[in-house]
Amino acid sequence: MLDKNLKICIVGLGLMGGSYAEALSSRGYEVGALARRSQTLDYAFQKGWITSGETEVTKEYIEKFDLFVFALYPHIFIEWIENYQQFFRPGTLITDVTGVKGSTVYKIQSILRPDVEFIAAHPMAGREKSGIEYADSGIFEAANYIVTPTEKNTEKAVAVCEELGRTLGFKSVSRLCPEKHDEMIGFLSQLTHCIAVSLMTCRDTDGFEKYTGDSFRDLTRIANINDEMWSELFLQNKEQLLKQMELFSGTFEKLKEAIENGDTEEMRALMRLSTERRKNFNREEGTKK
Amino acid sequence: MLDKNLKICIVGLGLMGGSYAEALSSRGYEVGALARRSQTLDYAFQKGWITSGETEVTKEYIEKFDLFVFALYPHIFIEWIENYQQFFRPGTLITDVTGVKGSTVYKIQSILRPDVEFIAAHPMAGREKSGIEYADSGIFEAANYIVTPTEKNTEKAVAVCEELGRTLGFKSVSRLCPEKHDEMIGFLSQLTHCIAVSLMTCRDTDGFEKYTGDSFRDLTRIANINDEMWSELFLQNKEQLLKQMELFSGTFEKLKEAIENGDTEEMRALMRLSTERRKNFNREEGTKK
Repeated sequence: MLDKNLKICIVGLGLMGGSYAEALSSRGYEVGALARRSQTLDYAFQKGWITSGETEVTKEYIEKFDLFVFALYPHIFIEWIENYQQFFRPGTLITDVTGVKGSTVYKIQSILRPDVEFIAAHPMAGREKSGIEYADSGIFEAANYIVTPTEKNTEKAVAVCEELGRTLGFKSVSRLCPEKHDEMIGFLSQLTHCIAVSLMTCRDTDGFEKYTGDSFRDLTRIANINDEMWSELFLQNKEQLLKQMELFSGTFEKLKEAIENGDTEEMRALMRLSTERRKNFNREEGTKK
Repeated sequence: MLDKNLKICIVGLGLMGGSYAEALSSRGYEVGALARRSQTLDYAFQKGWITSGETEVTKEYIEKFDLFVFALYPHIFIEWIENYQQFFRPGTLITDVTGVKGSTVYKIQSILRPDVEFIAAHPMAGREKSGIEYADSGIFEAANYIVTPTEKNTEKAVAVCEELGRTLGFKSVSRLCPEKHDEMIGFLSQLTHCIAVSLMTCRDTDGFEKYTGDSFRDLTRIANINDEMWSELFLQNKEQLLKQMELFSGTFEKLKEAIENGDTEEMRALMRLSTERRKNFNREEGTKK
């Protein structure tokens, strides 16, 4: 478990920052926060998730904390570091929740003061809603947490970051280099969002809800999407995402050809492979599939 | 509600036939069954879902019933009618659960005796398992049921078939012509299965379960697929399925181009449209999304 005496500041109290504040305060940590709007802070105070909070970034407030969690859009995170990093106390550790790594980790590490360390992490959890009013630390329970260290990181900082993941309640905590992380996320998360958006927009679906089964609902759940955040994440991981989209299109076309040609053996071979591979992604019995 | 005196025979006791037998017997109907294996009948007897059952098709058994539900693969359904329709009592009503309609409904109606009526229906429910041991009438509760009448059907038979859907517990019962049904199913169900299979097979995913969030799980739930049944259903609805696959590919490519060109406005426009349209497919609050 994370050292109980660590004073933790969450920067950005949206869905994810709010869920961090809830999880950490409920486990007895002293949590502070920086937010753009005072109403957001009021909400977190009322819930008992923070014991202090500011809308203005000041040296006096920043130097109270040992550990920072940045839960901001990638470009705002970089701007924040450029503008305010002089306020950190020497030895401060900072981490983040950003969904792409290659484009942010090296950038932040290259501009950051040498006496402050940035260890990046990606909590693989979320909801199709944004804003602190939807924050819920329960989303971490069955989820994965990935730490993405670089050569610039110390083993100590990586260990603290992993402890943070476990303290938040994630089911699995693992390590990947930023490049491998972005490949994974390009495939497992960004490609799936591209598919859902395409499926939901490729034709008029007015009135179709009377005729649908569960499969269309499942495949389009994430078609309800925060367009500002995801368009930024897509472009931050453009090269990998395009590569994954091409892998998918290639197989989709292969299946289409098999159907066109009435090639039952090819269709069935793909279906048997997909059935076999899907088994690795089953949750434990009794939980959500 | 369906007339309580109707004697109903289920032909084919798999996942769907078993679920019909469970639902109808629990609501007090006299249910019989034809199955290939006696073990299947034993299972249904033990559960109290049937009061009679046979593995051999005989005139003596067939003429006991007023209503038949065919829960067989399409080509086996057609063969059955060709081989045994002389055993039906005049005035018998038959229905089915087949997932494609254009290729079966007209065929069956054209070969069927004039004193027996076939009214087709598609219960839009299922599980990623097959066999009577996974039968569960609970799958009907939040699901849609579609009746697909043709000019050959009487209004009385359509009404009985709709009552059957309501008696089974479906949330919504509606009517579509076979062609419109197949377009809907091509898009809402078959295309989604093609996407799931392609996503699950387009690259090696060994070990990826540690890095995934819910979205990949949701999009590949149906990648666990009965290859024998679905390859047959795809070919039975080939023309419509290929049309829907092309609609999807076209939009997927459009999104891909927007990402390639860094066209944030185009990306966000597609995402806003998808978010807006997805709202119509939300379940009521408090139930599964």
